[in-house]
Amino acid sequence: MAVYTEIADDELACFIAGYDIGNVVSLKGIAEGVENSNYLLVTDAGPHILTLYEKRVDPNDLPFFIGLMEHLASRGINCPQPVRNREGQALGMLAGRPAAIVTFLQGMWVRRPRADHCLAIGGVLAELHIAGEGFELTRHNALTVDGWRPLFDRASARADEVMPGLADDIRAELDLLESTWPTDLPRGVIHADLFPDNVFFLQDELSGVIDFYFACNDFLAYDVAVCLNAWCFEPDGSLNVTKARALLAGYQKVRPFTPAELAALPLLARGSALRFLLTRLYDWLNVPPGALVAPKDPLEYLRKLRFHRMVADVSAYGLIL
Amino acid sequence: MAVYTEIADDELACFIAGYDIGNVVSLKGIAEGVENSNYLLVTDAGPHILTLYEKRVDPNDLPFFIGLMEHLASRGINCPQPVRNREGQALGMLAGRPAAIVTFLQGMWVRRPRADHCLAIGGVLAELHIAGEGFELTRHNALTVDGWRPLFDRASARADEVMPGLADDIRAELDLLESTWPTDLPRGVIHADLFPDNVFFLQDELSGVIDFYFACNDFLAYDVAVCLNAWCFEPDGSLNVTKARALLAGYQKVRPFTPAELAALPLLARGSALRFLLTRLYDWLNVPPGALVAPKDPLEYLRKLRFHRMVADVSAYGLIL
Repeated sequence: MAVYTEIADDELACFIAGYDIGNVVSLKGIAEGVENSNYLLVTDAGPHILTLYEKRVDPNDLPFFIGLMEHLASRGINCPQPVRNREGQALGMLAGRPAAIVTFLQGMWVRRPRADHCLAIGGVLAELHIAGEGFELTRHNALTVDGWRPLFDRASARADEVMPGLADDIRAELDLLESTWPTDLPRGVIHADLFPDNVFFLQDELSGVIDFYFACNDFLAYDVAVCLNAWCFEPDGSLNVTKARALLAGYQKVRPFTPAELAALPLLARGSALRFLLTRLYDWLNVPPGALVAPKDPLEYLRKLRFHRMVADVSAYGLIL
Repeated sequence: MAVYTEIADDELACFIAGYDIGNVVSLKGIAEGVENSNYLLVTDAGPHILTLYEKRVDPNDLPFFIGLMEHLASRGINCPQPVRNREGQALGMLAGRPAAIVTFLQGMWVRRPRADHCLAIGGVLAELHIAGEGFELTRHNALTVDGWRPLFDRASARADEVMPGLADDIRAELDLLESTWPTDLPRGVIHADLFPDNVFFLQDELSGVIDFYFACNDFLAYDVAVCLNAWCFEPDGSLNVTKARALLAGYQKVRPFTPAELAALPLLARGSALRFLLTRLYDWLNVPPGALVAPKDPLEYLRKLRFHRMVADVSAYGLIL
């Protein structure tokens, strides 16, 4: 995590006393996650996850995230379920931060995804999109096309420190995406960050999805593009077409793409690559003192962006048109 | 932890298959500990701790640490117990590192120790010393008086970067301690690192002791001096005499001090303060790239050292002679 907040003994006891989850027998900080501080909280009722929401999360967004997890879980998605305290609240304050307890999901994230994992990812993403229907709250995607240039403006002056020519490259991409970005694709609630460390597997079966803190309303196919970039490239930067085909096939089996979605996918993949290039670039140039995680390489996403620029149509991702 | 090692899926499965602990349902890196990588490993048999021993631990020392935990547990000390695999081995290899699975201890470490915690610490430390009798392996304390100057030599040239005059201050202390360090106090197995984060409490009762990776053979009273420094000072740098008195009283109740031990305690406390000053100074000047923990302030231990220099006898620690 980016920040690791110490919780004082008496504060924890007081917070937990408001819940009906038994006595605490263990609390350990988890060395995963970037936006928030996560703890494995074991009570005599079993394990839970305690999350403290750090500065990067807007407290006004928390009802959306908490409500979405409850909505999805009630629709059969295996995701953390917020635990409500005796007053019926799923959000409290602990160590000066908004805090929530959610249920513990079994499973581990996959360090080396295979095609069968990608097939499962496609399927669960489509299930998420369908399960998200009817969720009454909405949240604008701050990291879609209209958010990229303001983000770039905060990093552009130093972008060439990372790679000479990077600022010009990004600027040209922004110009193109802003003028060609689709406007009328099917919309809904998207996860927007379904990377391998946010999906658990248990003996090769997908057991759950976590970390809904980028979830928002946007094009459903944009979420597919995020997953293509996150799951289907090899460490050497090349697309694994077998994995991409599996991911798209897994999705299609649950929710068939519209022709407009298929046509837009290469462009959405460029946009998704630019989105992660930009946030990683910003983080790379702004490592906070005392950060507990090393920033991720922005250029990994430049390489993905360049791949998608060469793509003529969705057949490059293994899909037979 | 200083290093967070990624464990590949297939490697983990292969390693766990050698044990009789059921199927893995979760593996999460724990954001605690400095020397090793620790993971909470949940199987359908319950939670365990998986430790990968990183570079700072000498593999030749591992049989001592593993054997000591087994010896102490068999003598009634609540500490992690190494789990042996089907071949009877408590040590294996995982992700290219020596690895062990130990039992999970309930409890949490105390962020703000009170006098009653210090009383319990004194008691459990004396119990550890008695339980350690008869353990057949031995390990030299690499961080006692004869190890301090070599350690200082690796940090002295840059010590004044931390505080002007620090190198001279340490050099004078080394000269004094080397010439006056005791030679004939009662010896035995000591924990040598019994800081608050290595002791668990459950509803104000001490529930266990962890992290035996500095344990060695040395003066028993030196271990008491380590605890005085680790538990009894306030954040402002002053000794809390109530806590010190409680710690010493808790120890005495289980294992009475010899007169020689009492007489030596202020000197041992200086030595212990210098030991942590030196290791922290070295770590401060040598933060590895990609480190996941911020180095601890060496000057906290300079302040403690200076306090002990002013101490005439053990009555300064609240003990009535």
